Amino acid sequence: MSQKSDGMNYAPQGKPSPVVKSGEFAFAAAHLDHGHIYGQTNGLLEAGADLKWVYDPDPVKVDAFVKRYPQAKPARSLEEILDDSSVKLIAAAAVPCDRGPIGCRVMEAGKDYFTDKTPFTSMDQLDQAKAVVARTGRKYAVYFSERLHVESAMYATDLVRQGAIGRVIQVLGLGPHRIGPKSSRPAWFYEKAKYGGILCDIGSHQFEQYLTFSGATDAIVTQAAVGNFNNPDTPELEDFGEASLLGNNGTSNYIRVDWFTPKGLSTWGDGRMIIMGTQGYIELRKYVDVGRDKLGDNVYLVDDHGERHINVTGQVGYRYFGELILDCLARTETAMTQAHTFKAAELCLRAQSSARRIT
Amino acid sequence: MSQKSDGMNYAPQGKPSPVVKSGEFAFAAAHLDHGHIYGQTNGLLEAGADLKWVYDPDPVKVDAFVKRYPQAKPARSLEEILDDSSVKLIAAAAVPCDRGPIGCRVMEAGKDYFTDKTPFTSMDQLDQAKAVVARTGRKYAVYFSERLHVESAMYATDLVRQGAIGRVIQVLGLGPHRIGPKSSRPAWFYEKAKYGGILCDIGSHQFEQYLTFSGATDAIVTQAAVGNFNNPDTPELEDFGEASLLGNNGTSNYIRVDWFTPKGLSTWGDGRMIIMGTQGYIELRKYVDVGRDKLGDNVYLVDDHGERHINVTGQVGYRYFGELILDCLARTETAMTQAHTFKAAELCLRAQSSARRIT
Repeated sequence: MSQKSDGMNYAPQGKPSPVVKSGEFAFAAAHLDHGHIYGQTNGLLEAGADLKWVYDPDPVKVDAFVKRYPQAKPARSLEEILDDSSVKLIAAAAVPCDRGPIGCRVMEAGKDYFTDKTPFTSMDQLDQAKAVVARTGRKYAVYFSERLHVESAMYATDLVRQGAIGRVIQVLGLGPHRIGPKSSRPAWFYEKAKYGGILCDIGSHQFEQYLTFSGATDAIVTQAAVGNFNNPDTPELEDFGEASLLGNNGTSNYIRVDWFTPKGLSTWGDGRMIIMGTQGYIELRKYVDVGRDKLGDNVYLVDDHGERHINVTGQVGYRYFGELILDCLARTETAMTQAHTFKAAELCLRAQSSARRIT
Repeated sequence: MSQKSDGMNYAPQGKPSPVVKSGEFAFAAAHLDHGHIYGQTNGLLEAGADLKWVYDPDPVKVDAFVKRYPQAKPARSLEEILDDSSVKLIAAAAVPCDRGPIGCRVMEAGKDYFTDKTPFTSMDQLDQAKAVVARTGRKYAVYFSERLHVESAMYATDLVRQGAIGRVIQVLGLGPHRIGPKSSRPAWFYEKAKYGGILCDIGSHQFEQYLTFSGATDAIVTQAAVGNFNNPDTPELEDFGEASLLGNNGTSNYIRVDWFTPKGLSTWGDGRMIIMGTQGYIELRKYVDVGRDKLGDNVYLVDDHGERHINVTGQVGYRYFGELILDCLARTETAMTQAHTFKAAELCLRAQSSARRIT
């Protein structure tokens, strides 16, 4: 299921590391518009959750999902799932513009929500979700897969927290993606009102990582730009975006995202992260060590003791999913705080809305 | 002489590739404040120039220089060199704030000038140099060593010009530097009025590369920041700087420079350049392939045909110096146009003056 040639269907599988026993935590998968729903489902299953239902208006998507997860019972509607009091969490990967409203319905029904990124396409949706979270006490969790489902990024999360590179100064994230055959993408992929713009969509991973690695709790956008450089047939597709942030702790962030992964790259994108601190720096070559080898999850750590290359494939796992389940059960915030999630969402929306259009 | 642990004294040696015969092109070295003068001198000698004079007010610096280049005759003053009509070019690496005024004197004396970067520390100096160039027709050339004296960067220059990655969209440059023992640096290194600020000083390499790789002939600064994060004992040292540019051809640039190279890095700085185009991208790991091997000049090219790692050490040479000599003789602009040089200078000054101070 791990389709390395195609980020859209990249659904990592890890070592099962259950935090609950069968019968303790039931979830459903609803709205299967983005292939990330498979990654979300894998992560929850490996952490011990029970997949009870699946729902999508498109029976073709449901059939494919059930083929992979026969334990999922097709629901006739989202309501049918919302009415099942045994379901604690609904995982969803709807069209981006629908994610916020669906999340509000889920939370109003008393369940936690786990959506694919990007969590929102407008500030209004974010505000509504904040209000519903405040009123219901439910969780609006987001699958920021480029950190949470990438072992090297989780390893770096720990390294930075442990002080391995001193005080973080700057976080640089590159998130190139492969568009693949253009006809393989759904129509909404090319409609800006639906996907939200490139900084809002695939940029959202980057801003979440910035907040995590820098420790900033807020930031201003100091520059942002988007453009369509080479896709005139789909004018609403932004194939390039960049943004700079200045955090409230003096750290800064530069992110670059694009849909220009060349055909010759052995995977869907040469995702990189460079975290620079006063005592060293960390580089992640997440999905490939370009021109060197095809193995992902390469961590490069340089500090006063030397240069180290650490391949962490299979060494770290994906603890987020188990933490999320336990958070849902205990009403804690170990996996990710709601404030952090909403701030990451806000930053991608603000970067997008302030971006100048270049070409 | 190639001191890989120390960028200050990094003076590459290449294969001699003379463009002139002995007696055809005489130059002098004057003002030896920065160790780059050795790189400048090596480059000119390898291209066939004759080193006739050396001058510095400090006899210790002159003695060291003459020990390395016994053919250089110590001059009693800069005037003595300026009065020698056989000298075509004066190479200099003065304290940054003095480079502009010295260049104007050199050009007024009818000679071309070849200064270490950064070429100026104020816009007034740039304006004066422009006026003197216009009046005298002399050249104000700059040793932007991080491209001109780096084989991988010259290789990338050609790749991009040949269209290897299609239309360039974004240029990203990282220029970390090692400060080394702080007492090994001269006093001016810590005085902002003298070195000009980090974006003006080591940032200048980056802006020149941006213009070269992007083809932009002008740009605006969309954000810039400088800070002193970890050197409170030298408060005027900026140990971090970053800037974003938007070029007049729709390309963009992000640069990050710093003095935080960790002690454990095997060379003075993990200089990187990522040039992204519509048909592929190029990454340079200029001085080390961190955690992989100590050999510099690694070019990574990814395009529709695949991922390639090309080590170009010893394969490219440094054609700039020969081109500069021939330009001086023929009054052409093959090595670098004056407009390009001055625009790079202007961008580093503008980025520096508009930078917000963070910490």
